[in-house]
Amino acid sequence: MNIRNRVEKLRQLMKENQLDAYIIPSFDAHQSEYVAEHWKGREWISGFTGSAGTVVITLEDAGLWTDGRYYIQAEKQLEGSGIRLFRMMDPGVPFYSAWLADVLNEGRSVGFDGNVFSINMVRRMEKDLKAKKIGLKMNQDLIGDLWGNRPEIPKGPLFIHDVKYAGKSRVEKLNEVREEMKNKGANYYLLTSLDDIAWLLNIRGADVPKSPVVIANVIVAEQKCYLFIDSGKVPASVKLELEAEGIELKANDEIQTFLGNILSEDTIMLDPNKTNSRLYNAINSNTKKMESLDVTTNLKAIKNEVEIKNIKWCEIKDGLAMVKFIKWLKNAVDKEEITEIAAEEKLEDFRRAQEGFVGPSFDTIAGYKEHAAMMHYKANKETQFTLENEGLFLIDSGGQYYDGTTDITRTIVLGELTDEQKRDYTLVLKGFIALSAVKYLYGATGSNLDILARQPIWQYGIDYKCGTGHGVGFFLNVHEGPQSIRNDSNSVVLEKGMVITNEPGIYLEGKYGIRIENMMLVVEDEKTEFGQFMKFEAITFCPIDLAGIDQGMLTESEKQWLNSYHQEVYTKLAPHLNEEECEWLREETREI
Amino acid sequence: MNIRNRVEKLRQLMKENQLDAYIIPSFDAHQSEYVAEHWKGREWISGFTGSAGTVVITLEDAGLWTDGRYYIQAEKQLEGSGIRLFRMMDPGVPFYSAWLADVLNEGRSVGFDGNVFSINMVRRMEKDLKAKKIGLKMNQDLIGDLWGNRPEIPKGPLFIHDVKYAGKSRVEKLNEVREEMKNKGANYYLLTSLDDIAWLLNIRGADVPKSPVVIANVIVAEQKCYLFIDSGKVPASVKLELEAEGIELKANDEIQTFLGNILSEDTIMLDPNKTNSRLYNAINSNTKKMESLDVTTNLKAIKNEVEIKNIKWCEIKDGLAMVKFIKWLKNAVDKEEITEIAAEEKLEDFRRAQEGFVGPSFDTIAGYKEHAAMMHYKANKETQFTLENEGLFLIDSGGQYYDGTTDITRTIVLGELTDEQKRDYTLVLKGFIALSAVKYLYGATGSNLDILARQPIWQYGIDYKCGTGHGVGFFLNVHEGPQSIRNDSNSVVLEKGMVITNEPGIYLEGKYGIRIENMMLVVEDEKTEFGQFMKFEAITFCPIDLAGIDQGMLTESEKQWLNSYHQEVYTKLAPHLNEEECEWLREETREI
Repeated sequence: MNIRNRVEKLRQLMKENQLDAYIIPSFDAHQSEYVAEHWKGREWISGFTGSAGTVVITLEDAGLWTDGRYYIQAEKQLEGSGIRLFRMMDPGVPFYSAWLADVLNEGRSVGFDGNVFSINMVRRMEKDLKAKKIGLKMNQDLIGDLWGNRPEIPKGPLFIHDVKYAGKSRVEKLNEVREEMKNKGANYYLLTSLDDIAWLLNIRGADVPKSPVVIANVIVAEQKCYLFIDSGKVPASVKLELEAEGIELKANDEIQTFLGNILSEDTIMLDPNKTNSRLYNAINSNTKKMESLDVTTNLKAIKNEVEIKNIKWCEIKDGLAMVKFIKWLKNAVDKEEITEIAAEEKLEDFRRAQEGFVGPSFDTIAGYKEHAAMMHYKANKETQFTLENEGLFLIDSGGQYYDGTTDITRTIVLGELTDEQKRDYTLVLKGFIALSAVKYLYGATGSNLDILARQPIWQYGIDYKCGTGHGVGFFLNVHEGPQSIRNDSNSVVLEKGMVITNEPGIYLEGKYGIRIENMMLVVEDEKTEFGQFMKFEAITFCPIDLAGIDQGMLTESEKQWLNSYHQEVYTKLAPHLNEEECEWLREETREI
Repeated sequence: MNIRNRVEKLRQLMKENQLDAYIIPSFDAHQSEYVAEHWKGREWISGFTGSAGTVVITLEDAGLWTDGRYYIQAEKQLEGSGIRLFRMMDPGVPFYSAWLADVLNEGRSVGFDGNVFSINMVRRMEKDLKAKKIGLKMNQDLIGDLWGNRPEIPKGPLFIHDVKYAGKSRVEKLNEVREEMKNKGANYYLLTSLDDIAWLLNIRGADVPKSPVVIANVIVAEQKCYLFIDSGKVPASVKLELEAEGIELKANDEIQTFLGNILSEDTIMLDPNKTNSRLYNAINSNTKKMESLDVTTNLKAIKNEVEIKNIKWCEIKDGLAMVKFIKWLKNAVDKEEITEIAAEEKLEDFRRAQEGFVGPSFDTIAGYKEHAAMMHYKANKETQFTLENEGLFLIDSGGQYYDGTTDITRTIVLGELTDEQKRDYTLVLKGFIALSAVKYLYGATGSNLDILARQPIWQYGIDYKCGTGHGVGFFLNVHEGPQSIRNDSNSVVLEKGMVITNEPGIYLEGKYGIRIENMMLVVEDEKTEFGQFMKFEAITFCPIDLAGIDQGMLTESEKQWLNSYHQEVYTKLAPHLNEEECEWLREETREI
């Protein structure tokens, strides 16, 4: 059955259900960024494989809404499907529900699966559709009805993430959550975000690719905590351990009844951007709902001392893998045929040799020459390049380890560079150093700091169309909120103990891409009569390729920062390398 | 009647009215920053003269809530009054309505004058008081009942601000407002903000010190525009001109009936932070209210080409006054006795000699030595210093001219400086230059840019506890929104044609204060494939004292910026100066 057939079948089903439009987003029932195969209905109906995008089918038309990262890919994958591309970030392109309000006649009906839409997104759609009196019909999983051989919801086992890694027991974490519930006057807390659940209960699994989470839902009550989960996923010993700590296991499908039975005089706390509309609607309508960002999201963003100690060791292991990889690559590039995928696999091999490695933390971006100009490039066998001893090779990768999650980008100089390449490499480095070296007053947000990384690049009329940094989980999602470093208005203060990436870049379509990325820890600097000053501590340990630098463009203090960083890289990694590797690393981290 | 008596009288009146607390803020009926004497009830009841602060009287206690600018002054002025100071910006200090919720018993009543509280502020108080079931009783002007010889609401005449200054006729402006009303589906627009009214109708007056506004209210309907105003304020010729353009004059007290008569199927647009609660409550409760920032606030922030041309000329005149003043001061300081107030008056004399000068745009801050460490210092005869030929003299001042409003700070070197003073002067200059010289991508906000000015200062563990920049009106308020440059999360984009100040500083209590301030115009830089780049054009023309600079701390590009700015200052001002003045200015703007 090809895409056109699938869309036609869906239209028949829409007619049977008196629907004039049907919307299929890219989320699972937990609003995850990465989802299990079961929830890739949007991919099934459209053929578009990007991580973000929403398909809307009407009886006469069909569209895919996606963002700038995926315009080129979507254009290609939608060819011949009859589905049109809506470039979401372009001026004048309406949001899909606004578009529906425009194209549908008054009084029509729009269907969607309430499992995969947050209640806030439903509210936004309702607002757009209200004026035309267009109704929204929830809980219509038409894709599920059509999709033969749809993959099952993952049934794999969960495991305990030992407190020697996590640093804080689930009892302590539950106490912190209950403290917050008490402060806010909530009797229940509904938690549906998968990485928040994994963090809260110190459990991990393998239900979602690249992200060690477990499919489940949680309700925290004043005395008890209920874990709604497929019982087949919970080994007997884990069940015993959880129950001994006041966590009651219930079947996943019991949650709706449970929510409906909460008394109307009680208050339940939830995150309206995470809670799906089916669960939200299962709550007794008289029960008071208190809406805010998940409490756990703030708690897990600030790493505890044990986590920090673990992350630092994890980053040394990850740096060793990177150093071995770069050394191998620079040596082998003119001796053997190395494709982008081969390079990616080689790096994964080096990581796999490290203790506690579980798997990659996201799809590796390994782009040579103009491929690297695509920020979210994924090499494939048909179109990948073979590396040669010239130009730039960008590799953005990371690992999931029991003791941390890593994310690092280096742009490796494989041979001669043009003056323009050197200039741009140096501009990216200047932005990277400016943010790495900042001393700022406590209270600043990532939005206040972003310009430090961007300014040297803007000076030349260039910009990178993405954020400068994101939070990183601890053996959890590689993208984690609430903090970020972007040129926006995020009001989240960067707190001591938060981890954040620093990854400015320059991407010239059809030419090359440059990105340098470290993970950084927010730490305290001096305290004066004017307040507590803060700084970043680089916790990624891997040399930055000196061959890319136009040294004349660096100031003395930039050189100082780089030399001191390189000295630390050497000091941290050398004890774990052999003599030959040490010699290579000494040269790569030499003073400039 | 001293302060204690006044408070006791108020308590008696509170008892008669069954009130357990009464709140007196610093606003007028239009939420103005500066208010006419009539509305200085908070000053009358407490003796505190600062521009911002709220007094709360209970039957047993009394407090003043004010911000960091006024802690020292308030402490002094409240002495012996029985009113306690609440340091609003200090951690752990509750907002006054939260404090009332804490100290009052359940079911008590709090009174206030609904004229001087915005509807949003009332909502905030209601939220705080709800849990304790404490009632809010509006429209109780107890201060008015007590205050003998209370000054009248100003009755002075308004005048037309000619379109040769304003650049856009009131008909054009009304069309722009109606366009926005149409887009939003509003039938009426209630405008109560005084500077917005003055801008919209091209009228000015002298009702509020330092700010040439007229006390009035406006309702824009789809066809007509109603100006609610004391008829004695409107000269016959002005009345004719306004009426000829569809503006109907009504008595100020007719507005409540008018609002009450708007049909319930109609929609009225208003700004909930500007509209006072008495007017808000006068609107028929079934009439739909559409709340947002005043449309006019965005429109007037972006200066039109005629305004820009006028401002630039106005800034040249203001720069001439400043240059003459600085030249006089540097020469006279060791020859005659010059007090802070004498210096302030001399500068006003130089401004008064300029064409179109109306008056100061705010209270001049003229602080010598440690007086300048108080950001909002106002010299008085008892405690002012006499200037000598040593140290730093900070003067922050501005003028209202028919062709613009100015705001400039220079810190003048009167003689020998310590190394620390030179270092700090240079740090402030570095921050000032970094912001002046930035090239940024369109879309940035003042919150994104603020760190450029602060970073060199933070490097030394110092901070200034205020914003870096504010918008400036056009022959209107010297502080004008919605744009600003602060370390916060303001999401207002800096648009081409906006005017904004750049004023970093260092304030060391008991030692000295340094601030350098220019006004800047937002203009376009190059447009590339990555978007439209933007920059600032300095529009204040006055030398920055080279005697304060430690040249070794400046980079080459910082020196370049300064030299090029000084060259422009000379070029712009010299044609209007005599030979001796030119010679002096040439030396002051010499290349470094």
